[in-house]
Amino acid sequence: MAAAVEFTKRQREIIAIVKREEPISGAKIAARLNLTRPTLRNDFSILTMTGMLDAKPKVGYFYAGQHVPSLSFATLYETPVAAIMLQPVLIQATTTVQDAVTSLFMNDVGSLYVTDANQQLQGIISRKDLLRSTINGGDLSRNFASLIMTRMPNVVTTIPSARVLDAGYLLKEHQVDSLPVLAADTQKVVGKITKTRLMTYFIEQGLKIEQD
Amino acid sequence: MAAAVEFTKRQREIIAIVKREEPISGAKIAARLNLTRPTLRNDFSILTMTGMLDAKPKVGYFYAGQHVPSLSFATLYETPVAAIMLQPVLIQATTTVQDAVTSLFMNDVGSLYVTDANQQLQGIISRKDLLRSTINGGDLSRNFASLIMTRMPNVVTTIPSARVLDAGYLLKEHQVDSLPVLAADTQKVVGKITKTRLMTYFIEQGLKIEQD
Repeated sequence: MAAAVEFTKRQREIIAIVKREEPISGAKIAARLNLTRPTLRNDFSILTMTGMLDAKPKVGYFYAGQHVPSLSFATLYETPVAAIMLQPVLIQATTTVQDAVTSLFMNDVGSLYVTDANQQLQGIISRKDLLRSTINGGDLSRNFASLIMTRMPNVVTTIPSARVLDAGYLLKEHQVDSLPVLAADTQKVVGKITKTRLMTYFIEQGLKIEQD
Repeated sequence: MAAAVEFTKRQREIIAIVKREEPISGAKIAARLNLTRPTLRNDFSILTMTGMLDAKPKVGYFYAGQHVPSLSFATLYETPVAAIMLQPVLIQATTTVQDAVTSLFMNDVGSLYVTDANQQLQGIISRKDLLRSTINGGDLSRNFASLIMTRMPNVVTTIPSARVLDAGYLLKEHQVDSLPVLAADTQKVVGKITKTRLMTYFIEQGLKIEQD
């Protein structure tokens, strides 16, 4: 059983002092802050329990925080989709399969969104859809995107205010690679969230925490 | 700035008492544990600071822990690759491109690993490689996997003891979809880690924490 602690301003000041002057006694830290030692008792408890500080009897406090990377559920999982979504590549229903494949490679993406003139989503085309279409043969310059796309309302979508966790849940449950992000009011396509984007996001957060 | 706290046995006992008897005064909790109130002062500080308990003056302590999901860097990011890797789909260098595409769809995977008779990795084929090959035309039943695969030593690989964070870093930096996992000693292919697998892993961990 564990929980996350947000440190108070005073606790962050104590950490800063210890980082600068370690080893340093509790009395000296209190003096730096113009406070009495008993006032700081709780802060010292919190800071040693969380592993930020190490206390050695008769020597003082040491900084030990680098060994306890901190992670908050809210920061990691409750970030809104809007904060990490990507620009989608849009094509039209009358784009040929040939041009769709070219667009996929040119933009180095895994999916294309088919929209009408008002940026309303009509469908989505994945790398897998294109591979299925090319292997089946036929004239790729005469087949239209509308023929091979997954069509609305069968496309799983999300909204900008959804949490990263919710978007990931949809990608996982529906086994899709990409989620169009639609404005909650106008339903216009405003972004995309992909498995790759989410994976990269989680790894970047982990690397950042490790370097803290 | 935040940190993770592991609760002590006594703190877990306090939480259990409060869950059962809330609202309950500090004095009563001390009595249940056969301890004095001052002895518990630090524990109460920790438990309220971490959001596990709520204190209302003249009323007592309430359980508030469900609002503070806990997350540990070690659990989330330092899990070894071996714990979450998948079984790869293996083909041979002499498998035709046609059969490779069939294998990709049949197994519903994004990549195929090309190995020799000793399970040594020779190369890897992605959905993108196959799409490029099919769009370029030619007789897919006469082209071999060896022609279109990314060839060793140009394949980015990992080992079972690597951390999830390390594997994700490689996927991200090299912009590949799939990492063969090779046994550190024999170099045999023993698994695979994909962007999808990592994304699913992070989301599953998040859902689990939320439900705790």
